[in-house]
Amino acid sequence: MFYLLDLLGTMAFAISGVLTAMKKRMDPFGVFVIAFVTAVGGGTLRDMLIGRTPIGWMLDLNYAYIITLGFFVAIIFRKKLDKFRVSLFLFDTIGLGVFTLIGLERGIAIGLHPMICVALGTMTACFGGVIRDILCNEIPVIFRKEIYATICIVGGCVFFLLRSWNVNEDVLYLTTSGVIIVIRLLVVHYKWSLPSLGRD
Amino acid sequence: MFYLLDLLGTMAFAISGVLTAMKKRMDPFGVFVIAFVTAVGGGTLRDMLIGRTPIGWMLDLNYAYIITLGFFVAIIFRKKLDKFRVSLFLFDTIGLGVFTLIGLERGIAIGLHPMICVALGTMTACFGGVIRDILCNEIPVIFRKEIYATICIVGGCVFFLLRSWNVNEDVLYLTTSGVIIVIRLLVVHYKWSLPSLGRD
Amino acid sequence: MFYLLDLLGTMAFAISGVLTAMKKRMDPFGVFVIAFVTAVGGGTLRDMLIGRTPIGWMLDLNYAYIITLGFFVAIIFRKKLDKFRVSLFLFDTIGLGVFTLIGLERGIAIGLHPMICVALGTMTACFGGVIRDILCNEIPVIFRKEIYATICIVGGCVFFLLRSWNVNEDVLYLTTSGVIIVIRLLVVHYKWSLPSLGRD
Repeated sequence: MFYLLDLLGTMAFAISGVLTAMKKRMDPFGVFVIAFVTAVGGGTLRDMLIGRTPIGWMLDLNYAYIITLGFFVAIIFRKKLDKFRVSLFLFDTIGLGVFTLIGLERGIAIGLHPMICVALGTMTACFGGVIRDILCNEIPVIFRKEIYATICIVGGCVFFLLRSWNVNEDVLYLTTSGVIIVIRLLVVHYKWSLPSLGRD
Repeated sequence: MFYLLDLLGTMAFAISGVLTAMKKRMDPFGVFVIAFVTAVGGGTLRDMLIGRTPIGWMLDLNYAYIITLGFFVAIIFRKKLDKFRVSLFLFDTIGLGVFTLIGLERGIAIGLHPMICVALGTMTACFGGVIRDILCNEIPVIFRKEIYATICIVGGCVFFLLRSWNVNEDVLYLTTSGVIIVIRLLVVHYKWSLPSLGRD
Repeated sequence: MFYLLDLLGTMAFAISGVLTAMKKRMDPFGVFVIAFVTAVGGGTLRDMLIGRTPIGWMLDLNYAYIITLGFFVAIIFRKKLDKFRVSLFLFDTIGLGVFTLIGLERGIAIGLHPMICVALGTMTACFGGVIRDILCNEIPVIFRKEIYATICIVGGCVFFLLRSWNVNEDVLYLTTSGVIIVIRLLVVHYKWSLPSLGRD
């Protein structure tokens, strides 16, 4: 179940990568690389930092398959994707929750401090998009205005708070991802954003 | 022999890095870093992903020497390099073939799936240029129009096809790099390029 | 003592990251990431290349604390930081010396060739700034005109020269960082810079 949600999120991230790359008028190879990097870049960076190699997507081909599927779906239906805007947003939000949890778990598995685990969770969920923006020659959008990473940080704190109360693991996972998903929906619905810290 | 071709390709890649960096009016340090990254960046990324550390060029100094040689050659003869355009293109194409083979071999050596090995071969040959373009603040040229990575992917597929027929290793290596070199020559001669996937 | 200087340099680097990110009008999350990356990015890249994982700042939380402190100090006193310009420059210069030494030591510890150790020292001191500039969508400033990396290279050569004379370790450390600090002061005072290698 969790694994299926992971793949669903991976596909949503890949589709968002395709859409960004097409705006930059890239060729098919470029679009595919951006889709791949958006989907698994955050987890790849995390695994390189903690020394967990070869990286997961090299050993489990399902990630490559689902990204390829997302790539073709996004290209074939590019003119109709607007109709699926809500579904795509939902899958993307599920990805945000699931990827954060995976990052948290990876940190815990090697005994890192909760603060670093939260950083790893946030990195897993958000840094694929950062690498995508760098490859597209843009300042990463989550550094400028989108409340995105902050939600993962809040979710990570909720996770460790609940964990310190020894709640059941299922409750722990469901609540954390639930919190992330609900905040994300609120943020987008009310168009919240962080103020910039530019010098006046 | 193979090792000499590897070094020849490394030097050609370093020279192409120098030329790109000089267009951006970088200082000598910047030009050297770009040359270095263009030459060994793809292999470095590959080795970080598969956990093969310390990275090869840290243990075998010949890479640093040949890059330094390429750096000085490119700077001293910068006004005469046009005369060697054909040789440089040939060395660069040899590099493309040799680097792809090295990437394929590294993946096979740790038992990865052929698809991932092809990705590693392509990464080895192409991602030095990607990192070069990122450091020069450009969208990577191979993501936009140049048929370059696609050739490595085709070469990788040929490699595994031949390998499944149990052909002799020398034949395997020569045919794969031969295919890559011939396609590259055809692509450049006929000015083939991939169409962009920009949304109309 | 050495550890304290390391933390002081880390904080100075983080503050310089905050100032760069604020010019780009980033939000607090973006500013914090840039501060973090500027402070520890060079060492992180070095440790990924030599396979020393998990990366140091994941195990020793003092780096995260000092960066957070630098982040708040820079934001709260952003309008008064000009008064501390000299102190900040001094801390930054101390960081340059200390970070170079740490990089040299890491290379020696795993038996790498002096040339590669010098590269690692330079990377430790300078590549946090390179990653900062990439994330801010700029060509890295040290590739264009600032004499910065060159100082670390000179410092690294002095280090191995002294080391070949078997000087006492304290003398070795103090002289190397002293040379780096003095050259940096001279460079800034006399506004030295490297000529660009642009093609005319």
